[in-house]
Amino acid sequence: MNTPPSQRLGAGTPRLSLNRWSFRTTPIQEFLEVTASHGIDAVGLWRQDVEEIGLDALRRRTDDAGLRVSSLCRGGFLTAADDAARSASLDENRRAIDETAALGAPTLVMVVGGITQEDKDIAGARSRVAENIAALAPYAEAAGVTLSLEPMHPMFTADRAVIATLDQALDIAEGTGCAAVGVIVDTYHVWWDPALEQAIARAGASGRLLGYQVCDWNLPLAPNPLFSRRYMGDGYIDFPSITRMVTDAGYTGDIEVEIFHEDVWATPADDSARIMAERFEQLVLPHT
Amino acid sequence: MNTPPSQRLGAGTPRLSLNRWSFRTTPIQEFLEVTASHGIDAVGLWRQDVEEIGLDALRRRTDDAGLRVSSLCRGGFLTAADDAARSASLDENRRAIDETAALGAPTLVMVVGGITQEDKDIAGARSRVAENIAALAPYAEAAGVTLSLEPMHPMFTADRAVIATLDQALDIAEGTGCAAVGVIVDTYHVWWDPALEQAIARAGASGRLLGYQVCDWNLPLAPNPLFSRRYMGDGYIDFPSITRMVTDAGYTGDIEVEIFHEDVWATPADDSARIMAERFEQLVLPHT
Repeated sequence: MNTPPSQRLGAGTPRLSLNRWSFRTTPIQEFLEVTASHGIDAVGLWRQDVEEIGLDALRRRTDDAGLRVSSLCRGGFLTAADDAARSASLDENRRAIDETAALGAPTLVMVVGGITQEDKDIAGARSRVAENIAALAPYAEAAGVTLSLEPMHPMFTADRAVIATLDQALDIAEGTGCAAVGVIVDTYHVWWDPALEQAIARAGASGRLLGYQVCDWNLPLAPNPLFSRRYMGDGYIDFPSITRMVTDAGYTGDIEVEIFHEDVWATPADDSARIMAERFEQLVLPHT
Repeated sequence: MNTPPSQRLGAGTPRLSLNRWSFRTTPIQEFLEVTASHGIDAVGLWRQDVEEIGLDALRRRTDDAGLRVSSLCRGGFLTAADDAARSASLDENRRAIDETAALGAPTLVMVVGGITQEDKDIAGARSRVAENIAALAPYAEAAGVTLSLEPMHPMFTADRAVIATLDQALDIAEGTGCAAVGVIVDTYHVWWDPALEQAIARAGASGRLLGYQVCDWNLPLAPNPLFSRRYMGDGYIDFPSITRMVTDAGYTGDIEVEIFHEDVWATPADDSARIMAERFEQLVLPHT
């Protein structure tokens, strides 16, 4: 296993990591340099970056910028019912695990996939996710990385992730019997959950709280609700409360700011990084 | 208490009730006549109808059309933190309870209210809902009607209803210690919930399963996701499975079709009612 992120914190803005997709319109090299220039010492990367510049180059550039990789996004899409698609998906996830390890990231974020209008059997899709995660777990463990199951907001249950709550993600993680599978808490996806506090405590107690991502929920939703995430403080989420739940559960790792919004992408990267760091220091960091 | 809906079924399309808001652009008299002309013997009404034509006239017209009222929508909005607003809200809800009884409807549907950007304390808002529902419960019981707490889809947690799951609604209902408080299952709001089957069974076992409303979930969401509901069969929801859960829980009451969508409102009422009845007979009725 990699050294836990908590033991690798730099001297900059402690705990903060910027997610690559918060800057999707910024070239990768500029993103890395802007991040480092703000005293931030970690980034969450995406497989699209690997595809664009290659695994070795991405690792080298990250190292050269003095940055750690807090997570790689994403594996998953494990709900297909036919054998060929299942097999292809498992292969693709093994490649994603290899990339996670090669980048020195502790965890691969898993977006598990949805259902189709042709096959609306959500219980069946959920069973396949559990089976496929169990099949991938030993491979991840051998590679020295973890799989972070991401419960997604229920408005994405149909098309992106049949895992809708943290408790459900934990049931699947624990069901693998493998310590390499856990969960990631993304405020945008879970803030509404009446069982949130207990579920976060459960994740911590079972050693499966592997990541924490922050961004705000605001209204009205953007036309594409995937791109409706906002800077912390601009919406309805109570970051002090949720951060204290995560802290009380014993989480000491990186905290990624992951915002997808056209307005944010249209903002110069340096300004955007500054706002993220300020909001993080105001609303999140005091509660860690 | 009113006679349970199950003992009052007519000879038309059994169990089916059309919700007024599925026909919000149709004049009330036409809506009642179209409903009756399709052999459907119940309607779900809204307080806007009471406001428009008066309580006595609404009751008389409904009776004249040979229709029962399966529910009145809606009470709720009980999250305000200041005393004056709380008091006004409780008064308004007592009026809604009186109207429910006067219309001969068994239950008042409760949309409990959201939070604000000024007060993001969702746990506090949830506590106030529980207190206020407990305060209203004896009044409803004395009036011979029930309060149906409606868990709403988590994309409405911020602005409409801090009750996001059926289990949470049941916790509040049971916490009142009053048999007049229960829950209503609306497929659009709860279909994604991994705990759905157990929660519906729990509602049935505790005698608190008071209503069942159906419509489909499709993508992309409409610009206003409140108006994104579709005809059963046009989206992702597995109506046979959910209907069997409701049936297995012992529910024998009316089943309302409640669809809010610009396309549906633009369809002639007679065509729309026919489609709703057909889809109900194909996807819902065989599983009751």
